[in-house]
Amino acid sequence: MADIPAQTELKVTTGPIRGSKKIHVGPLGVAMREIHLEPSSGEPPLRVYDCSGPYTDPQARIDIMAGLPELRSAWIRARGDVEEVAQREVRPEDNGQLGPDRSGGVQPFPNVRKRVLRAKPGANVSQMHYARRGIITPEMEYVAVRENLGREQMAHLRDGQDFGASIPDYVTPEFVRDEVARGRAIIPNNINHPESEPMAIGRNFLVKINANIGNSAVASDVAAEVDKMVWSIRWGADTVMDLSTGRNIHDTREWILRNSPVPIGTVPIYQALEKVGGVAEELSWEIYRDTLIEQAEQGVDYFTIHAGVRLPYIPMTAKRVTGIVSRGGSIMAKWCLSHHKESFLYTRFEEICEIMKAYDIAFSLGDGLRPGSIADANDEAQFSELATLGELTQIAWKHDVQVMIEGPGHVPMHKIKANMDKQLEACGEAPFYTLGPLTTDIAPGYDHITSAIGAAMIGWFGTAMLCYVTPKEHLGLPDRDDVKVGVVTYKLAAHAADLAKGHPAAKLRDDALSRARFEFRWRDQFNLSLDPDTAEQYHDQTLPAEGAKTAHFCSMCGPKFCSMKITAEVREFAAKQNQSAEVFIAAGEADLSAEALAQAEEGMAAMSKVFKETGSELYMGAGGRERD
Amino acid sequence: MADIPAQTELKVTTGPIRGSKKIHVGPLGVAMREIHLEPSSGEPPLRVYDCSGPYTDPQARIDIMAGLPELRSAWIRARGDVEEVAQREVRPEDNGQLGPDRSGGVQPFPNVRKRVLRAKPGANVSQMHYARRGIITPEMEYVAVRENLGREQMAHLRDGQDFGASIPDYVTPEFVRDEVARGRAIIPNNINHPESEPMAIGRNFLVKINANIGNSAVASDVAAEVDKMVWSIRWGADTVMDLSTGRNIHDTREWILRNSPVPIGTVPIYQALEKVGGVAEELSWEIYRDTLIEQAEQGVDYFTIHAGVRLPYIPMTAKRVTGIVSRGGSIMAKWCLSHHKESFLYTRFEEICEIMKAYDIAFSLGDGLRPGSIADANDEAQFSELATLGELTQIAWKHDVQVMIEGPGHVPMHKIKANMDKQLEACGEAPFYTLGPLTTDIAPGYDHITSAIGAAMIGWFGTAMLCYVTPKEHLGLPDRDDVKVGVVTYKLAAHAADLAKGHPAAKLRDDALSRARFEFRWRDQFNLSLDPDTAEQYHDQTLPAEGAKTAHFCSMCGPKFCSMKITAEVREFAAKQNQSAEVFIAAGEADLSAEALAQAEEGMAAMSKVFKETGSELYMGAGGRERD
Repeated sequence: MADIPAQTELKVTTGPIRGSKKIHVGPLGVAMREIHLEPSSGEPPLRVYDCSGPYTDPQARIDIMAGLPELRSAWIRARGDVEEVAQREVRPEDNGQLGPDRSGGVQPFPNVRKRVLRAKPGANVSQMHYARRGIITPEMEYVAVRENLGREQMAHLRDGQDFGASIPDYVTPEFVRDEVARGRAIIPNNINHPESEPMAIGRNFLVKINANIGNSAVASDVAAEVDKMVWSIRWGADTVMDLSTGRNIHDTREWILRNSPVPIGTVPIYQALEKVGGVAEELSWEIYRDTLIEQAEQGVDYFTIHAGVRLPYIPMTAKRVTGIVSRGGSIMAKWCLSHHKESFLYTRFEEICEIMKAYDIAFSLGDGLRPGSIADANDEAQFSELATLGELTQIAWKHDVQVMIEGPGHVPMHKIKANMDKQLEACGEAPFYTLGPLTTDIAPGYDHITSAIGAAMIGWFGTAMLCYVTPKEHLGLPDRDDVKVGVVTYKLAAHAADLAKGHPAAKLRDDALSRARFEFRWRDQFNLSLDPDTAEQYHDQTLPAEGAKTAHFCSMCGPKFCSMKITAEVREFAAKQNQSAEVFIAAGEADLSAEALAQAEEGMAAMSKVFKETGSELYMGAGGRERD
Repeated sequence: MADIPAQTELKVTTGPIRGSKKIHVGPLGVAMREIHLEPSSGEPPLRVYDCSGPYTDPQARIDIMAGLPELRSAWIRARGDVEEVAQREVRPEDNGQLGPDRSGGVQPFPNVRKRVLRAKPGANVSQMHYARRGIITPEMEYVAVRENLGREQMAHLRDGQDFGASIPDYVTPEFVRDEVARGRAIIPNNINHPESEPMAIGRNFLVKINANIGNSAVASDVAAEVDKMVWSIRWGADTVMDLSTGRNIHDTREWILRNSPVPIGTVPIYQALEKVGGVAEELSWEIYRDTLIEQAEQGVDYFTIHAGVRLPYIPMTAKRVTGIVSRGGSIMAKWCLSHHKESFLYTRFEEICEIMKAYDIAFSLGDGLRPGSIADANDEAQFSELATLGELTQIAWKHDVQVMIEGPGHVPMHKIKANMDKQLEACGEAPFYTLGPLTTDIAPGYDHITSAIGAAMIGWFGTAMLCYVTPKEHLGLPDRDDVKVGVVTYKLAAHAADLAKGHPAAKLRDDALSRARFEFRWRDQFNLSLDPDTAEQYHDQTLPAEGAKTAHFCSMCGPKFCSMKITAEVREFAAKQNQSAEVFIAAGEADLSAEALAQAEEGMAAMSKVFKETGSELYMGAGGRERD
């Protein structure tokens, strides 16, 4: 084992996010994060959803070489429907046609399991199967607790447009079970990935985001990918896809899975292609099936499978501006054409379902024919495939296998809604999982933004999970900084969608941050933000002094000229003068409604009360700048 | 003059944007940019809108100390309705209560004009006034040529949802005149800013963006602000607002105006407040009026005036989470309360109109009561003010004075459309000019993105100009890098809006870039993008070799594994085999429509033709990566 990289080389970021504390709630110990506010706020800590796993828990002992503790192991075994089997032996070609490349310090994961789990013969271990039999699993209970952040406060009236979603005021385990049973939500949880903390992907839950990592034939290494995984969940990635190609693909995945508290997705055709030396025509069902088993035993939680790329749809792409841009889609297209045959992913779909249910792997039905440019959006190829994904969803559900549906891609704003509507209709409300979509093609280097626009919109319309796009999209492999920017960008898009859908508790964080901003609680403002480190760093670029963080002004307007400061003075002045509606009537206003006047009076009275209670020169300073 | 900073200290970025050439079109020499593509593309140069002025023209001689040439001077004088008057003498307090601060190397602009223009007594020099009398000005002709980019090709079918806009297939000078006459568009063009290149802000023209610059009492200097102005227009800012506060405010503005080819907007109340030492209560109509004249004579093209902040609306903000966040709005609120009087901006509005029409300054009616948080969006205070802005619009139009209306702010996605609808209705289709809106409050450091989501949406719905937000929003003053990120982000949001509205030629650039991407023309891909430098830099981080820029693969997938490469092989294969619909019928497909099959056959035949014509192993490589 001397050849294995020393643990110091496998560095990941640990420790709490600043201003926050890891907590574990209820008998299942559901992981959450509490953001603590300054005492002057008079506010309790704010609980937020937390995907970061033990890495942000100072109590946890992190050992990348050993992997994470197996949170779900007892739950899985207690159901009595699994058996231990010897793990399929790793073959050299599992790490690429040329075998593993050990030159870059990449070694097999040291703590690999010899025996793995599989459903007993005839059993189905999918969460959907349990749900449909009326069983509430610990996974469902975990999800219910996790999704309920702040809902118990219910201080906030529901306010949103949900386009026909069924978002409950409060999430019960029974609600989770019902959503999973209906196929409207999935809990991707391979029984061989017991390290994962259960989470749900569905239109009636919080909008989730996925981060892609993975090396390629020309760049990246295992240590960097493990680091990116931990880094991406720190900032909020709900699931991670390992899109590695090239060599060491098996080993990379093992390192990631054993250290990941979030579900891991893959595109198995990538590895299958590696096994046949990159020649698509040489792919076969046998090689593909073997790859599915290999990855199922490692613990992959969802597979992207491009089973909707059918032979007759391929010519529909010939006149496109950008043809077929999905890698998996183009591989299968090439296979279909060269063999003059229907795709084996389509013809063998029921056999694939048998594998999925033996490990509880969810389908992520790939949109191999999605548009790769504005010009190709919403075309016949795309929607023909979507109809097929709908058919396949029904087949998977017949097997009680969980399914989500992948979506585009590049779509101008006015064509986004149709994507959601058609998906809901074609796929029986199975969760939609979209890549952006990018709303223009002309901003390489800024495609995280171009796509965040589309992502926020389609998330609002009903997409359950948004696959992030980084600034390097179309240009290069994302590095650590790109991963963070992509995750935070998508987190804000998902949150914008939650707000617009009227998620009962989404606004709590916005309101807390806005209060902090208005009251010049700079540290609270940083800590409540999605990226406290960047917020503070930007602030300090203009006003680095420690005193400026408690100052009642900011760098944009200076001490005398702050709109929020003036607003506070307006309030103070109004309160002191005990001004009420009469003043404004005296001012000669006829067009003001009685209701408005009553409200004004009430507001002033409330302010006055605050002043009396605090009994002081209450100076309600404020931070933040607006244009004018 | 020895004290004036040497020209080398006043550095601005000059030279063409890479891959592009400045051109001047037609008898008026309308400035445009041509992006030249690689010969292998077989495509002509692509013309794009260009706000960058002479700075990107290698033929132009740039002298910051002298200012730009006066493009419009002859047009203005030829109309015979202006007279020369002695410029109001600059007083020390014009540069702040303490007078100018020369310590930082800030000097008065050396080439200041002694005499300025004003309308002859009784004359009205506004573009709206000419328009309503049926006169097509050179300014209108310039705008018509400028807006027509690519429309003559008309190869692209109109495709969009314009929510009732009236976007023409082709923009004629008469169309411009009619839009200005109706008040649906403005051409902000102070007669004392003859250096400006005319541009239109209106729902039926391309969506425009504004960049804010300006120093504050605690940071920034003149050289940096001039540099930011030139830098922001290089990347696409259509107008620039100088939001300087603190000292040297008059001198800073003079430097900016004399060197700006785009309209400059200001918020005159900022300077008026400086003149009274920052004490809002001491503001008076006389001081404000004097400031308007001062800035009118300097050449400011539009004034933000918060005349809608009326006394009765102020208490409506008392219960808000973030009160009044507009600086101008809060200043006036304080003035109103302390004097128990209606705002002098409101009571003196007709007098202000008289000033505006003597110089052709456009109103940007400020939304002083806009929401500063998600919690406060679309509330009574905001919409009460909007109704007043509608009344004021009618008064301004009575004087033939141009008007646009400023809008929010912070608005969750589901409440954005109502803002546009109400604005159109209340303000008679006067152009809307919005700040974002930000769709969540929780992303300080990423507010350019949070707001780009809202900006793209409201731009689609009909907003004519989007005020940019930088990553420093709420945190600090934007530096040069922030300005660029803000401008490019808003340029992409505006373009996404143009696409979705169905602007006739917007898609040309997307399609050209997508073709370049698909054909691995990396340099064309960079050059066609909004920010070629960043695109290339990101590409080179993974694959820096010069060869990689002509390689038929990219770093994400490596040489063997590129989806676009495989797509090209699919096409080639299909073409070579002369595959046609029969193959797919043979594959047993029943669910394929006759239409689809016909199209498929046609597509394959077309590809086959291409192959025959090129007579070669046509290898249509492709660049760019998608998720899977």
